[in-house]
Amino acid sequence: MGSLANAAALEINGSAFNLNPLDPEEFRRQGHMVIDFLADYYENVHKYPVRSQVEPGYLKNILPESAPNQPESLETILDDITNHIVPGITHWMSPNYFAYFPASGSTAGFLGEMLSTGFNAVCFNWMSSPAATELETIVTDWLGKLLALPEKFLFSGGGGGVLQGTTCEAILCTLTAARDKVLNKIGKDQIGRLVVYGSDQTHCSLKKAAQIAGIHPANFRAVRTFKSDAFGLNPEELRKVVSADVAAGLVPLYLCPTVGTTSSTAVDQLRGLCSVAAEHEMWVHVDAAYAGSACICPEFRHFIDGVEGATSFSFNAHKWFFTNLDCCCLWVREPQALINALSTNPEYLRNKATESRKVVDYKDWQIALSRRFRAMKLWMVMRSYGVANLRNFLRSHVKMAKLFEELLSADERFEIVVPTNFAMVCFRFNPKKEDRSAGLELDQINELNRRLLEDMNSSGRLYMTHSVIGGEYVIRFAAGATLTEEKHVRCAWKVVQEHAEALLGEQKLLQ
Amino acid sequence: MGSLANAAALEINGSAFNLNPLDPEEFRRQGHMVIDFLADYYENVHKYPVRSQVEPGYLKNILPESAPNQPESLETILDDITNHIVPGITHWMSPNYFAYFPASGSTAGFLGEMLSTGFNAVCFNWMSSPAATELETIVTDWLGKLLALPEKFLFSGGGGGVLQGTTCEAILCTLTAARDKVLNKIGKDQIGRLVVYGSDQTHCSLKKAAQIAGIHPANFRAVRTFKSDAFGLNPEELRKVVSADVAAGLVPLYLCPTVGTTSSTAVDQLRGLCSVAAEHEMWVHVDAAYAGSACICPEFRHFIDGVEGATSFSFNAHKWFFTNLDCCCLWVREPQALINALSTNPEYLRNKATESRKVVDYKDWQIALSRRFRAMKLWMVMRSYGVANLRNFLRSHVKMAKLFEELLSADERFEIVVPTNFAMVCFRFNPKKEDRSAGLELDQINELNRRLLEDMNSSGRLYMTHSVIGGEYVIRFAAGATLTEEKHVRCAWKVVQEHAEALLGEQKLLQ
Repeated sequence: MGSLANAAALEINGSAFNLNPLDPEEFRRQGHMVIDFLADYYENVHKYPVRSQVEPGYLKNILPESAPNQPESLETILDDITNHIVPGITHWMSPNYFAYFPASGSTAGFLGEMLSTGFNAVCFNWMSSPAATELETIVTDWLGKLLALPEKFLFSGGGGGVLQGTTCEAILCTLTAARDKVLNKIGKDQIGRLVVYGSDQTHCSLKKAAQIAGIHPANFRAVRTFKSDAFGLNPEELRKVVSADVAAGLVPLYLCPTVGTTSSTAVDQLRGLCSVAAEHEMWVHVDAAYAGSACICPEFRHFIDGVEGATSFSFNAHKWFFTNLDCCCLWVREPQALINALSTNPEYLRNKATESRKVVDYKDWQIALSRRFRAMKLWMVMRSYGVANLRNFLRSHVKMAKLFEELLSADERFEIVVPTNFAMVCFRFNPKKEDRSAGLELDQINELNRRLLEDMNSSGRLYMTHSVIGGEYVIRFAAGATLTEEKHVRCAWKVVQEHAEALLGEQKLLQ
Repeated sequence: MGSLANAAALEINGSAFNLNPLDPEEFRRQGHMVIDFLADYYENVHKYPVRSQVEPGYLKNILPESAPNQPESLETILDDITNHIVPGITHWMSPNYFAYFPASGSTAGFLGEMLSTGFNAVCFNWMSSPAATELETIVTDWLGKLLALPEKFLFSGGGGGVLQGTTCEAILCTLTAARDKVLNKIGKDQIGRLVVYGSDQTHCSLKKAAQIAGIHPANFRAVRTFKSDAFGLNPEELRKVVSADVAAGLVPLYLCPTVGTTSSTAVDQLRGLCSVAAEHEMWVHVDAAYAGSACICPEFRHFIDGVEGATSFSFNAHKWFFTNLDCCCLWVREPQALINALSTNPEYLRNKATESRKVVDYKDWQIALSRRFRAMKLWMVMRSYGVANLRNFLRSHVKMAKLFEELLSADERFEIVVPTNFAMVCFRFNPKKEDRSAGLELDQINELNRRLLEDMNSSGRLYMTHSVIGGEYVIRFAAGATLTEEKHVRCAWKVVQEHAEALLGEQKLLQ
């Protein structure tokens, strides 16, 4: 680490006035090098072990203990990235990546991030870069229309959209808005009475957001779901829990139904849930972090039927909308509720545009003051591919999941654990499922699948992750990585079979 | 908007299986185009009006009302950016940008963001990309050593650093940790007794974080500062306020002293403040968002003397450390306090590495689950420039501020309102200050400076912003934009003089 091939221009003698770390020609030279580096990476990413195989602490032994005093060349740094960083990366962009929910980066998403990073505008209010704010209001309206969200969620209908980093932030902001709205009515010191509702399948970020917002931990409800409802939250279950709380003198505040849960892509029964919530004037935030994207396809739109009864809605464009990390799209019916809870107005940010009340100042719609120009990448994605292609890309992932499901279904040793709604298949290996006399106990099946998954991931040939649903350990096959093609799905199925067979052989040996 | 020159490859017939929005060769071609676009932008950015001159709503009239159904070429999109977006950008990268605190982007910071966006790893825990987590622990230790932070803030000393988006997030996380630590002692239902302290100069994000964390709005204290302390918070003033709260049965929770306030780069009296806080076991978070960077220079390090008495410390590398937006570096003495407040452990994220307890899972140190590979850009900045150059870059900005101050001081119609600690000068135009008989009233001086600033910014030749300190309207000249050179500072001074003289002429006419 440390040859100085191209760093000569940076050496200085006493004064740095004549040098510049943003020299346009050097920027151009180095920028082209990194583009080529990344293009080569995408060409070769299928060759790397998908899940990094390094051991904890591997990098500490390689890198120096302190920052270098003298500059190092980009050539040296890129060599180090190849030799020391790439082996430590879990390759989310690999075509053999089927873990968690894939992060569907694309060329357009990447270029949009480049442009916004290049302009490097800090877009806290309209004035600090009008184009960033205005483009954000425009693209969130575009996207809201594609999702056929109710008009009242769009700027054109008195609501509006905002781009945040993650769903966790979207939930925390809307929860804070909901909380303050209710506390303004019942008294600022009544926070201990407020209750937040999700299901036992809701993403952990709801509980965390409630915790951060000061909701009493005892007032968080994970309402039970059932296999008979495919693990979607049933309005009647919610009603029971809410009624008990109301009877106990508590105040139902916020409900977060999910469209496409993390464990199994289950869909909560939106319409009925909104009705229950309406009886208690609760804020309903629909978390469609993963599955929201699919709803731009007419054939999937029904999954968010009932959203007209919600107060806010969000999905992550960085999950399944070809937008590089991070970009969570949030729409609210009543922006003023967010603004009331989150606005600040220090003297040093006062300006004529804000005072004219003709502009949106997004700092008042989110946690942080500083914000990136995220609208750029979403705009580039929609324009570069066009709606027709975007829909087909999504459909192609759903097709891949169907293909994987078909391959699985043809092998009687495997079973699909919950219905496949989108591009994710939840399955398990249960080799003796037909053998009622010598069938395996649940614990044994779970352990077998735990072993199977670990064996596959340790091979580096693919990466899948797991969940436990209704007590059953399931392996999650999530299609959606941008480079994945049909051949990778077929190959993944082969990997599953090979490892399952190896495991069976091993078990036989042990018997 | 809409020729399809290069989009042919994207056209599809029924199936999208054979196409890919991350085709490496197309990525390469388009990536090079955007690098050239940005290099040209940096070459020409000095020519654009610094503060965008567009009117509210300008973009809505230009862009279509819906997303396009068919793809558009990158050439078309870049033309639109040139014609419609660039005029709406306030050019933070312009050498004539002296507003707020500049965002000191650099080639290395940009390339680091490109690489992390390109790998597109979602780095919530160690397993999801070990290199991202390990590099973050390494570079925050590097940077902590450069700042000569107490060993207990570093991983090597049992503490540790984390890269968040913004100071607002760093404050909200540490405040939540502090809150839960105290509530675990005094009872979860005692949130109404907790008090948060800053000064009347503290950044608005403290009040907002307290609001989000459910601290009773009446329990937020903005302790008064005085001109005689150069608007730094005086420990005796804090002591008075804290004592009154304790006497009233309240519980002092969290103190946020600032090193380099937004209005005037004032420095709170850290050592004494930490002593007062220690008497009440308060959490002390030092907000050095802007000025922290400078403290890597030995001659500025004294500004954070006393930090050994603090519980946590943060600064924004995206402000004045050549790292493109966003990157806030936070160090805590006791990571477990953060983890206790912010950890989640859903089944679908369980993994062997986490269970081995040998790794850091940064999701438990921040609000969100998903997180970008921010360490990459900080690592690239430190290696590409080296510590010696970084210090000199910072010194060059301080020199520019000194130069501007000298130019101002030589003109008796201007005055420096507060001492210049770093690279920001707070000044005002007070043309009759020597004339005791016909001097202007404070309101008149304020109005004159408001006019002067608006005139300068409307000219597009530079961008400065204002604040009001101790009732005085001041113009803030903040050096630190990466492309700024001495000649731009001299030019800025000319702009100030010309507009001041024009204003004087106009006022004479009106008399």
